[in-house]
Amino acid sequence: MSAVEDRLDELGLTVPDVAKPVAAYTPALRDGNLIFTSGQLPMVSGTLVRTGKVGTGDHAVSPEDAKKLAETCALNAIAAVKSVIGDLDKVKRVVKVVGFVASDPAFTGQPGVINGASELLSKAFGDAGVHARSAVGVAVLPLDAPVEVEIIVSVQD
Amino acid sequence: MSAVEDRLDELGLTVPDVAKPVAAYTPALRDGNLIFTSGQLPMVSGTLVRTGKVGTGDHAVSPEDAKKLAETCALNAIAAVKSVIGDLDKVKRVVKVVGFVASDPAFTGQPGVINGASELLSKAFGDAGVHARSAVGVAVLPLDAPVEVEIIVSVQD
Amino acid sequence: MSAVEDRLDELGLTVPDVAKPVAAYTPALRDGNLIFTSGQLPMVSGTLVRTGKVGTGDHAVSPEDAKKLAETCALNAIAAVKSVIGDLDKVKRVVKVVGFVASDPAFTGQPGVINGASELLSKAFGDAGVHARSAVGVAVLPLDAPVEVEIIVSVQD
Repeated sequence: MSAVEDRLDELGLTVPDVAKPVAAYTPALRDGNLIFTSGQLPMVSGTLVRTGKVGTGDHAVSPEDAKKLAETCALNAIAAVKSVIGDLDKVKRVVKVVGFVASDPAFTGQPGVINGASELLSKAFGDAGVHARSAVGVAVLPLDAPVEVEIIVSVQD
Repeated sequence: MSAVEDRLDELGLTVPDVAKPVAAYTPALRDGNLIFTSGQLPMVSGTLVRTGKVGTGDHAVSPEDAKKLAETCALNAIAAVKSVIGDLDKVKRVVKVVGFVASDPAFTGQPGVINGASELLSKAFGDAGVHARSAVGVAVLPLDAPVEVEIIVSVQD
Repeated sequence: MSAVEDRLDELGLTVPDVAKPVAAYTPALRDGNLIFTSGQLPMVSGTLVRTGKVGTGDHAVSPEDAKKLAETCALNAIAAVKSVIGDLDKVKRVVKVVGFVASDPAFTGQPGVINGASELLSKAFGDAGVHARSAVGVAVLPLDAPVEVEIIVSVQD
């Protein structure tokens, strides 16, 4: 098991299997030294664990819950990377993270939500997990997911 | 004519000319072995073929229509790539697709819409057309376009 | 001082210092010959200079004001690049710009807003500043910012 997975194991997290592609795209792809993942939803065992928009209203997904969902997205992104390179210790750097938060238009705490992904990547990869990042609030996400995260990582030659 | 264009021709599709840039940006750009396209709208002969938000309401763009518009976006992205390398058979791989769907907040079928782009890329480039992808629903797109698609491809040395 | 900064100086603009990272991410990062910036908000001296959605209503941020804010985002992106390479004259090409505009759903002038970023990059870097670009309208941005801009640049070996 990779050192990356050892660190995740200490957090009680296991890198899941990657769901089979359902369309003409793939969970992740290597080109040169870069791996691009598809946008990852907070799926666990093939099921979206929560739906809705993030905000502070009665029926909204709370920012705290959404942060945890962003962590799940990041774990799925790590799984997608693993599906390409096998050994996660080959990751040289997490280069870029884009986090989309399905947001109530009054909710402006997207950075705090996406910190759930950023912090997990940092715990998993150490200094190599510190990345450039964009966080934005969007109207709606696939399957009514509250969060979607895509990453780019570079790998050793 | 490239084999890519032969395959599109069999589908009754022709790679259009690229519209001249209207601002301080360009339809596509090569850096190293990667070509990045600008976000492509469903323009045909310089005219946006449809406006509005995608959803299931009376005045919404239907998901079926939107899928077809995503195909047009992808065809324009192929045209943008061609404007840089000339011969589309030099494309080694479609690396990444990001699809933005201007969405009614209740519409959650963005993946099905962006399949219009993914499937065309797969038909045009074969196995090399299978890519990593993100699909998101946004509030509104330029000129009130229902769909916008950007792609990254890699080319042979 | 770099020629890039000389040109900005003629426009009355100074490349600011980069704010310290506030989370597990960094303002910009080099991998190989590419520098990826984080999404930049219209911050001046650590303060967001304007909040709200862009549109034409009474309480909206006007498209003209938003264009100016996009310029500020681009200036901050240049600062983020400088924090990585020091000498901005090492930039070979501005490769890609993604501009997110927090939009009233009826506002469709995102390209005009993001021209504020594109035009500044062109003035700063000359021909090397002409890039591929996507502009989209989103529901809401971090801290209620009206505009967010991220860029990718390539640098000389």
